[in-house]
Amino acid sequence: MIERFLTIRKRTEGICVPLEIEDYSVQPNSDVSPPKWHLAHTTWFFEQFVLKAFVSEYSEFDVDYSYLFNSYYSNVGEHVLRADRGLMTRPTIADVVNYRNYVDEQMALFLSGNVAKGQLEKVELGINHEEQHQELLAYDMKYILGHQPTFPKYGDGFQLKKEREFGFVSVDEGVYEIGYNGPNFHFDNEENSHKVYLNAYEMSKSLVTNGNWLAFIAAGGYEDVNLWHSEGWSWVQGLEIKAPMYWYLDRGEWKYYDMTGFNLVDKDLPVMHINLYEAHAYAEWKGMRLPTEAEWEVVADQIQWGQLWEWTNSAYLPYPGFKSEAGALGEYNGKFMVNQKTLRGGSIATAIGHSRKTYRNFFHADFRLQFCGLRLVK
Amino acid sequence: MIERFLTIRKRTEGICVPLEIEDYSVQPNSDVSPPKWHLAHTTWFFEQFVLKAFVSEYSEFDVDYSYLFNSYYSNVGEHVLRADRGLMTRPTIADVVNYRNYVDEQMALFLSGNVAKGQLEKVELGINHEEQHQELLAYDMKYILGHQPTFPKYGDGFQLKKEREFGFVSVDEGVYEIGYNGPNFHFDNEENSHKVYLNAYEMSKSLVTNGNWLAFIAAGGYEDVNLWHSEGWSWVQGLEIKAPMYWYLDRGEWKYYDMTGFNLVDKDLPVMHINLYEAHAYAEWKGMRLPTEAEWEVVADQIQWGQLWEWTNSAYLPYPGFKSEAGALGEYNGKFMVNQKTLRGGSIATAIGHSRKTYRNFFHADFRLQFCGLRLVK
Amino acid sequence: MIERFLTIRKRTEGICVPLEIEDYSVQPNSDVSPPKWHLAHTTWFFEQFVLKAFVSEYSEFDVDYSYLFNSYYSNVGEHVLRADRGLMTRPTIADVVNYRNYVDEQMALFLSGNVAKGQLEKVELGINHEEQHQELLAYDMKYILGHQPTFPKYGDGFQLKKEREFGFVSVDEGVYEIGYNGPNFHFDNEENSHKVYLNAYEMSKSLVTNGNWLAFIAAGGYEDVNLWHSEGWSWVQGLEIKAPMYWYLDRGEWKYYDMTGFNLVDKDLPVMHINLYEAHAYAEWKGMRLPTEAEWEVVADQIQWGQLWEWTNSAYLPYPGFKSEAGALGEYNGKFMVNQKTLRGGSIATAIGHSRKTYRNFFHADFRLQFCGLRLVK
Amino acid sequence: MIERFLTIRKRTEGICVPLEIEDYSVQPNSDVSPPKWHLAHTTWFFEQFVLKAFVSEYSEFDVDYSYLFNSYYSNVGEHVLRADRGLMTRPTIADVVNYRNYVDEQMALFLSGNVAKGQLEKVELGINHEEQHQELLAYDMKYILGHQPTFPKYGDGFQLKKEREFGFVSVDEGVYEIGYNGPNFHFDNEENSHKVYLNAYEMSKSLVTNGNWLAFIAAGGYEDVNLWHSEGWSWVQGLEIKAPMYWYLDRGEWKYYDMTGFNLVDKDLPVMHINLYEAHAYAEWKGMRLPTEAEWEVVADQIQWGQLWEWTNSAYLPYPGFKSEAGALGEYNGKFMVNQKTLRGGSIATAIGHSRKTYRNFFHADFRLQFCGLRLVK
Repeated sequence: MIERFLTIRKRTEGICVPLEIEDYSVQPNSDVSPPKWHLAHTTWFFEQFVLKAFVSEYSEFDVDYSYLFNSYYSNVGEHVLRADRGLMTRPTIADVVNYRNYVDEQMALFLSGNVAKGQLEKVELGINHEEQHQELLAYDMKYILGHQPTFPKYGDGFQLKKEREFGFVSVDEGVYEIGYNGPNFHFDNEENSHKVYLNAYEMSKSLVTNGNWLAFIAAGGYEDVNLWHSEGWSWVQGLEIKAPMYWYLDRGEWKYYDMTGFNLVDKDLPVMHINLYEAHAYAEWKGMRLPTEAEWEVVADQIQWGQLWEWTNSAYLPYPGFKSEAGALGEYNGKFMVNQKTLRGGSIATAIGHSRKTYRNFFHADFRLQFCGLRLVK
Repeated sequence: MIERFLTIRKRTEGICVPLEIEDYSVQPNSDVSPPKWHLAHTTWFFEQFVLKAFVSEYSEFDVDYSYLFNSYYSNVGEHVLRADRGLMTRPTIADVVNYRNYVDEQMALFLSGNVAKGQLEKVELGINHEEQHQELLAYDMKYILGHQPTFPKYGDGFQLKKEREFGFVSVDEGVYEIGYNGPNFHFDNEENSHKVYLNAYEMSKSLVTNGNWLAFIAAGGYEDVNLWHSEGWSWVQGLEIKAPMYWYLDRGEWKYYDMTGFNLVDKDLPVMHINLYEAHAYAEWKGMRLPTEAEWEVVADQIQWGQLWEWTNSAYLPYPGFKSEAGALGEYNGKFMVNQKTLRGGSIATAIGHSRKTYRNFFHADFRLQFCGLRLVK
Repeated sequence: MIERFLTIRKRTEGICVPLEIEDYSVQPNSDVSPPKWHLAHTTWFFEQFVLKAFVSEYSEFDVDYSYLFNSYYSNVGEHVLRADRGLMTRPTIADVVNYRNYVDEQMALFLSGNVAKGQLEKVELGINHEEQHQELLAYDMKYILGHQPTFPKYGDGFQLKKEREFGFVSVDEGVYEIGYNGPNFHFDNEENSHKVYLNAYEMSKSLVTNGNWLAFIAAGGYEDVNLWHSEGWSWVQGLEIKAPMYWYLDRGEWKYYDMTGFNLVDKDLPVMHINLYEAHAYAEWKGMRLPTEAEWEVVADQIQWGQLWEWTNSAYLPYPGFKSEAGALGEYNGKFMVNQKTLRGGSIATAIGHSRKTYRNFFHADFRLQFCGLRLVK
Repeated sequence: MIERFLTIRKRTEGICVPLEIEDYSVQPNSDVSPPKWHLAHTTWFFEQFVLKAFVSEYSEFDVDYSYLFNSYYSNVGEHVLRADRGLMTRPTIADVVNYRNYVDEQMALFLSGNVAKGQLEKVELGINHEEQHQELLAYDMKYILGHQPTFPKYGDGFQLKKEREFGFVSVDEGVYEIGYNGPNFHFDNEENSHKVYLNAYEMSKSLVTNGNWLAFIAAGGYEDVNLWHSEGWSWVQGLEIKAPMYWYLDRGEWKYYDMTGFNLVDKDLPVMHINLYEAHAYAEWKGMRLPTEAEWEVVADQIQWGQLWEWTNSAYLPYPGFKSEAGALGEYNGKFMVNQKTLRGGSIATAIGHSRKTYRNFFHADFRLQFCGLRLVK
């Protein structure tokens, strides 16, 4: 477990290597957090829920950090407003690196002792929490670099590949079982395995591509009110949206920022950075629809997944018999179960082994800074 | 059909009798429409989708009205921005009454002729549409009068009664069928009858009361972050919410505006004007939960319903195989199927016979000007 | 005095004759008040500062009105938020007419008795206050009707005439005297007569015309950043301003709403509904400038004035030795002496005899719903 | 001139020495610029208006910088939106230091040659421009550090002293002369020397102190509507203002952030970080008033000034005969002459020799992040 812990912690720092110090502190909008904040908050999580909880003689690295790097755990105390994370130039990134090292040492010490099962579960949760922030780091770094006038290069770290299999998988009408029931780590929102009734459907084996999307744009998809949800149409009109996030029309050609720089859109790759409204409009245009969570999970073993999180048309809601964990960690999932949509799969920014077919990711319908795409059902 | 048509039309006008001319034109916020607008828009609906569609020699009452009183049917042309409806002092209410009379006469003439089945369906839809606006009229009149410093009296028209039966109905796990499959009028969003899998549950026969709600307030329900969705908590804190809409603490006593004036809260009546966040927080406090749509529909025949629309925890989403109607009327329901919650039942403001157990009403989670309440499941 | 009082009161009601009941209650933006509110507030002023102050046995028409129709006199008690004036459909216009009649009778009774000089001064102030609201009524009626899709006609009441004299008046450098020093009614902000030092200047005898303005538009005045204040340029760009308020380009021709309907812009009339930013930009374009207050007052007897309030480039600031009146009426002028510009003259909506050459009107630089124009200095 | 140039440039860098790299890039609100931006923009000014203008073979350091570091000179081309300056983590501070060194070398080369008088004037303007940004740097550094939860220490660089002389200076009524007329560097807004007529007045020799301000707070100054401008009162109420910026009530004692840390308010020092509304309210409370610009300038030689910029009650307006410089530099002052107030004097953050008694500084009435205080007149 020590090794696993340290490996994950190093991976977080590895992701940040291409950054300049200036990149660590900035918060271009309130949905994006400064990389420095992710580095500190994931550390705070271990300090708060493991070291302070289980190590009686533990001495905090800095008592202010408990306030500075709490995200939203109201039961743990006050926290800096989300939108103000970018104002904190202090502590510096050097301070935060020291904080990480200190907590890593203390955690290693703790893990080398006699650790109870319930304690290990918290460490495991912390690891999964850090993996989630690794993914958010990728989104936020792309946003920070991709919204600057000069489009600075991050590097080759997060590149999509062409999908390999095409066609549709067919599923018969009937009762199926979804949700997690096994012994391994999973989130409370995946529990429990339960029965659902599905009508027959066919699901595409591959994601929609940039080439498909260029055709949608060319066909006037962003101008046809009949393809859009009412709120989607307000979004398109209000912000004058013409294409996915990071796409710009440059002298007649569509280009995008893809973390290696500002490049021509590659038609063969899956389209990414579209929100639910766009995904729905595209599906309408094709005369198809988005899958539900259950439909996705039932065929997960027969399709390629893992390059991009896939919008479903399911709302993020509790499964039958859902119970939040007790205490502060009960705030992890349950309190977000309103006004969001579920996404399934995983992405090129997801830590290996982090996701699984029962995993439920969630975002608001208008969000598109995450690494997401879409798959169609008919 | 002529008689049915005219009866409904007269009922709309009857609802407005207690209003002063000044009350007809005002729009206190963008979610409320002026009563005059409802009177004109429901008329426009018949003119647009029946008279102009099926009566070749039909002459419009006023060509500007097609623009002025369209709500959101983008396929029919431009429309006045929703938030600007209250700026239109002209046409006057007298003009709008003339408009109603003119269209009523033309409709009566049309209905007295040889009317095709498809045409009758549009009239039926128009009637149901007008019934929906009758209900919105009640909400909006209450809002207009109930947000004035002097709390003017509307009258006794919309008063709740005490619930009569208590206890819970039990349902076994299994496959059930929900949705509409019959020959009578219904909306596209209720189609079709389809199977769902339900786990066992028990549902209360009665609605939560004002007395229950006073206990929730007294217990600090509005101050306990752990009861609330994250977005619900932001709403409570941001707007400093302490009680349902229309409730005011007056020298230590809770009073509300109930359309007869400003009165003491009646503990025996069902609580109304709470939004989904509040309903959820209350259920959490009781250790229970809100029903899903399917759970509600399956027991509908065994519970009292019809005083207040009841929040479910289901998102408003398409049923399997959902198809919008073709043409402008396809905008009626489908385009709202995102970011809203379903409510079931009916209310004291619902036209008799308008609702049924498969009926799907929908609002955003933060809405509470509608006549809504809650029922618990365990 | 009774006669003068009643004449002014009747004039207010006369201005409203062309309105429909619906027009009286609406507030299209927070800078515009419903006509009903003006009718009631001017009445409240006499009730508050004369009848309640000087008539011991006076019985209020309605105790709520003291709260409902206070504008901003904090010393008199709470008041309805300015932006909420349009929500009050009650009291109705009929109630307000009764209120006016009641107060008029009580005032006539009071004035027929033995009235002290200090009391008469308050009546005189009330009359001037009502005359100011008569002018605001004109602005607000124009705004209410002129911002509707159908441009309803008010009537011929407020029409400009062509200016008759042209050329410039020359003034020598030296010490001049401005401000009010006489025995007649005037506002505290005009006191006292005091010396100012002026450099030589020449002032136009006539106002800038619509024809001049069309030339400014045609020359790209609204697109040339160098003509504008920095904040003016933000205003032009942010709101995409291309012309004065009420002007619309209709198939290549500039038209405007002028209270008789929607008509071709008349090149011979003075331009109106331009704000200070526009006035300044125009002056820059002509290589001239706006006058200061003192420059205007010194030549007032040698120029035509009275059709439109004229922007000066002076800030609205206290004269040397300025003292507010004691008590609530001290709130009349002094507390607005920041962030506003002074306008001089009078307009077609100003009551006869209300203005004079020392009169100081004031508005924010971005305001243009008032009846204002500009005159140049070189 | 080379030496003067390089001295000023080094002073700018010296001011930044206590900063961490993270501090250089952040923009906590749109009125504050990142220190990095100041360092680059002042350099851009020399590159743009001297090197590119006068050195034919000059090669730009980076062609993008012309866009990235323009502030608002519309005639020079597009610029990054003011509010987006904090998003640019690239170029890094290291890049900007290289940019400064490159331009310094090129400037030194240029200045060592044969430089025409008109060219030297531009260099002199650039130096004064950089001195102004040095002062803004102090404001912005204080804001950046003083709005963080941990109040990081900047150092002892900008500390006030106690005032030494008290009492009032008397001035007789008469014609006086103000404005700049000499041969040395000055801004266009100070020209020309011109006559003004003043009434008799007495002006305090010293600034209002923190001790005075504590008395104002204790007397309920922030709660008494009668002391405030109407817009000032809205500001106080809307933002719940209780004290100057950077003041916090800490267990019954007023403390402030003064760049050395979080300390008890020192009663003997001049009060700073109050806006015009507060200054006016204080003067009203004392039964005195703020000076006008002319009143201040006439007695400048008889009072202590230079610790804090002093609010006057004059609006920032053109002097008689004001002419902007031609070309892009004409945007320097004239376009801001609306909606702002003039401040006179200088502050502990003003470069030595930068200010003079004719100098006209200006801010909006609600601004208080600048180093400003107040002096009274009776």
